[in-house]
Amino acid sequence: MVLELEPGAITDVGGICVGHWTDLQHLTGCTVVLVEQGAVGGVSVRGLAPGTRETDVLRPGNLVSRVQAVLLTGGSAFGLSAADGVMHYLEQKGSGYHAGSAVVPIVPAAVLYDLDLGPASVRPDAAAGYAACQAASANVPQGNVGAGTGATVGKLFGISRAMKTGIGTASVRAGRLVVGAIVAVNAFGDIYDPTANHIIAGTRAMHAEQLIDTSAALASAPVRTAMALRNTVIGVIATNAKLDSAQVNQVAVAAHDGLARVVRPAHTLFDGDTLFALATGHIRAHQVLVSNMAAEAVQRAILNGVLAAEPVLDLPTARSFAGRS
Amino acid sequence: MVLELEPGAITDVGGICVGHWTDLQHLTGCTVVLVEQGAVGGVSVRGLAPGTRETDVLRPGNLVSRVQAVLLTGGSAFGLSAADGVMHYLEQKGSGYHAGSAVVPIVPAAVLYDLDLGPASVRPDAAAGYAACQAASANVPQGNVGAGTGATVGKLFGISRAMKTGIGTASVRAGRLVVGAIVAVNAFGDIYDPTANHIIAGTRAMHAEQLIDTSAALASAPVRTAMALRNTVIGVIATNAKLDSAQVNQVAVAAHDGLARVVRPAHTLFDGDTLFALATGHIRAHQVLVSNMAAEAVQRAILNGVLAAEPVLDLPTARSFAGRS
Repeated sequence: MVLELEPGAITDVGGICVGHWTDLQHLTGCTVVLVEQGAVGGVSVRGLAPGTRETDVLRPGNLVSRVQAVLLTGGSAFGLSAADGVMHYLEQKGSGYHAGSAVVPIVPAAVLYDLDLGPASVRPDAAAGYAACQAASANVPQGNVGAGTGATVGKLFGISRAMKTGIGTASVRAGRLVVGAIVAVNAFGDIYDPTANHIIAGTRAMHAEQLIDTSAALASAPVRTAMALRNTVIGVIATNAKLDSAQVNQVAVAAHDGLARVVRPAHTLFDGDTLFALATGHIRAHQVLVSNMAAEAVQRAILNGVLAAEPVLDLPTARSFAGRS
Repeated sequence: MVLELEPGAITDVGGICVGHWTDLQHLTGCTVVLVEQGAVGGVSVRGLAPGTRETDVLRPGNLVSRVQAVLLTGGSAFGLSAADGVMHYLEQKGSGYHAGSAVVPIVPAAVLYDLDLGPASVRPDAAAGYAACQAASANVPQGNVGAGTGATVGKLFGISRAMKTGIGTASVRAGRLVVGAIVAVNAFGDIYDPTANHIIAGTRAMHAEQLIDTSAALASAPVRTAMALRNTVIGVIATNAKLDSAQVNQVAVAAHDGLARVVRPAHTLFDGDTLFALATGHIRAHQVLVSNMAAEAVQRAILNGVLAAEPVLDLPTARSFAGRS
């Protein structure tokens, strides 16, 4: 394997900070993308088993289109409570939608299922969300941190034959235009190196440190609905482009093509694949260009999240296999 | 280039026939996928400049979920009239939804823009749709036929620097389960050989038979809204799986991941990318397996549509460049 980490981070977009809350003992965590000055937000939910909060507010034409943070969190649907802590942090800062007598922070959130690693009873809560905000900076650690702490991929045969992945970030530039992404990689399917069409992390063979091909194995393996809710790729794209609500939602939709290129199968009945997009509104750029860069940034962030992961318990990583194939 | 045509056709699914109407003089045409006994239909419209007919009827929960044909046609929105001829053919056969005193054939349709090749005033009409039905069989010619007759890709700088593509079909199997696809390839973006992450057809350099990278060029080229409505990838997936209306719509959504893997950029503001899905309902199979196979079948059908094309006017094809790179 010759893959190296791609440079850049979502915080290359001015005004964006990222904070992780990481519980390595219980193997869960959460990540907040803060944009205290607000950004136009959009979302695209493409998996069929999502866990989300404040996604309806992002629809084009709705009253409120600006958000102050996005939360990515472990803990399955329980983890949604971590957004309470993010809201509390922003309320203290006076950041949010000015609605009469209150300032209401808008904090969309999406969850991933990490309850098969570590005790299922420990999940990110409001204190975790608040702590993630306090930790926020332009420096973004990757791998087994934040929402990536308990992330795994390749779960056709359950967690015992999965591989450890994590959270990754990347950015791409075109002149002054920047598009960054941060993605927690917890897919049902396998992760591909797109330059070689080669699986780098996914479902392993029973008694060997070998990868099987989940797509191929689907044809013969019993597919059980119990696999549902246990997988998901969740992320945030940010750009300094000036986009309206409809356009930023289109960028979120287009960004899923980057996911489709490196996760296979993606967007399944068992995944809750959800991507948010944020536009901070400084640079004039065509939506088609931003969309294309968003797909590229997501693809790179996913690969970074996989390559930066460290082994946990008995679960190896893409790097564990490096040099052997 | 070592790519070869992939075997199989959408007609490997029992009960499915395909007919082309081809006008090589005016460089337009249409293709009908006939399933006279009816199939549960679904659709996913992912491009932002679509031209369609009878897509709303396919929504899960609606009264009618069975369709008797799908039409793919050139002629931009004018081509929608070819569906009248398909309806007339099916009405004569007594095939359709029994609605009191009439049998109403349900014929969803999607168009592609081919008016920059040949005279813009000649478009498929009702007679063309009827003729396509009369030509329908299990044998499916590929390339510059039917809806692929005027298809091109790589249109960042307009038709003069595009390449000729066409329509392709393929099928994949898992035991008795068959999933086939037929796709007319008329994308704004480039076509990639996914095994080598290499562009095989797309936007060409100004004075050479060389490919530029549309994704990369987007960052420096002026992106004009005039590019809209001139591009689209349209297709049909068929399977002998037993799926309900919601599931067959999910399959149509998932099939777009196959498109995302080989067309870049895909699903743009300038494309009308639309995929229909048909389930004939004989074989028990999990939606996740069928979805994964649908993405694979679409990917192969697109590559076949590109590799089977013949040069037209000054426009070369992927094969024109074969052996040179």
